[in-house]
Amino acid sequence: MASEHTAKAFDSDLQELTRLVAEMGGLAERMITESVDALIRRDVALGKHVVVSDIEIDNLQRTIEERAVLTIARRQPMAVDLREIVGAMRVATDLERIGDLAKNMGKRVAALESDFQPLKLIRGLEHMTDLVQSQVKSVLDAYAAHDLPAAMTVWKGDEEVDAICTSLFRELLTYMMEDPRNISFCIHLMFCAKNIERIGDHATNIAETVFYMIEGQQILDKRPKGDMTTFATTVPGN
Amino acid sequence: MASEHTAKAFDSDLQELTRLVAEMGGLAERMITESVDALIRRDVALGKHVVVSDIEIDNLQRTIEERAVLTIARRQPMAVDLREIVGAMRVATDLERIGDLAKNMGKRVAALESDFQPLKLIRGLEHMTDLVQSQVKSVLDAYAAHDLPAAMTVWKGDEEVDAICTSLFRELLTYMMEDPRNISFCIHLMFCAKNIERIGDHATNIAETVFYMIEGQQILDKRPKGDMTTFATTVPGN
Repeated sequence: MASEHTAKAFDSDLQELTRLVAEMGGLAERMITESVDALIRRDVALGKHVVVSDIEIDNLQRTIEERAVLTIARRQPMAVDLREIVGAMRVATDLERIGDLAKNMGKRVAALESDFQPLKLIRGLEHMTDLVQSQVKSVLDAYAAHDLPAAMTVWKGDEEVDAICTSLFRELLTYMMEDPRNISFCIHLMFCAKNIERIGDHATNIAETVFYMIEGQQILDKRPKGDMTTFATTVPGN
Repeated sequence: MASEHTAKAFDSDLQELTRLVAEMGGLAERMITESVDALIRRDVALGKHVVVSDIEIDNLQRTIEERAVLTIARRQPMAVDLREIVGAMRVATDLERIGDLAKNMGKRVAALESDFQPLKLIRGLEHMTDLVQSQVKSVLDAYAAHDLPAAMTVWKGDEEVDAICTSLFRELLTYMMEDPRNISFCIHLMFCAKNIERIGDHATNIAETVFYMIEGQQILDKRPKGDMTTFATTVPGN
């Protein structure tokens, strides 16, 4: 930092960036809740609302990128200050992807024409969403508070989500085998379950960004992976 | 640019960034080809090779981000020069996602245990991959050459890919309805077809980045969308 003036200007830029990331995070959390609610209640209007919200989240990402780049060019921050700015850009990229995944679920609501809706399936989906939602919330809090232990808890907690996703996939497959009329519906839910699981992956990416911001290096440990959905579909079919 | 020295230093930084993006692009193109080849030939070793290549592409993205940020901080480029650097970062983000999608296909190879493999399906998948592969190649060439008309051709050409994806989905659904033993296999292919379609979406994102670099603003036109796969699965089931 060249002078006290620059340091103050940087702090104010950073504060504004952090505020924008928090706004984007709030929007992403809302989109997750609304898209799954829309799916479960077959609320086509709410599904469309999520699709429209994605424009807002995309715009926020562009704004964050622009301001981050201008801050780097104007204030020439180094070391930890520079990592704060890069961190904001990275978190915004993950939140934008979360928005995309919620939007994709919102789009699918209109396509669900079947009345088939086993309670066990809905409970599974809700449980998975609750877990992922709380991962997203915790990691955004950890980001805002620079709380590395909290971020690492999220980073390690992805296993349970992956396990539920795998068990949902197995269940969906069973329904598809039982009655071909369930197939369309179950495929939509499979894509949705996979989307929710991917939202969880983005929460762990954000945890890695918090690590990078605080520790000044990329995380090297391998994350525990419970995701077997890529393989789950072989089980009942063979 | 403060001085001739800075201008030269900037040019050399930018050249290195462009070289890294080209390297990443080559790797992404290779991963697309290899993952689909692996799927079609059921080549588990090749599938694993794609999964491993993803580490390389992730590392390249980090390197590009780091160098881009350092270039902005050191050379304080403005206007078109700044957009060149931001453009490199954006293209790297899309290429990293292409790598992820190819990796996901590579993972699925090991899960395909069925012998069921109708020629029509394979041809459809190959045709879709050829189209997407040529979109990716063209847009990377357009990026390297700052060729806006070429980028816009890619941007508009995504419709055909989406149409083939929709028709593949319908075909896969028919096979699933016919015989439950085809279900697992067909689900894997659905996820793969969707991945290839998403790779096409990233090619159009890169086209938008080329527009931004040259024109200095975001593209505002709506892209023609032929993608109906979100809705296709309702057709045969109801």
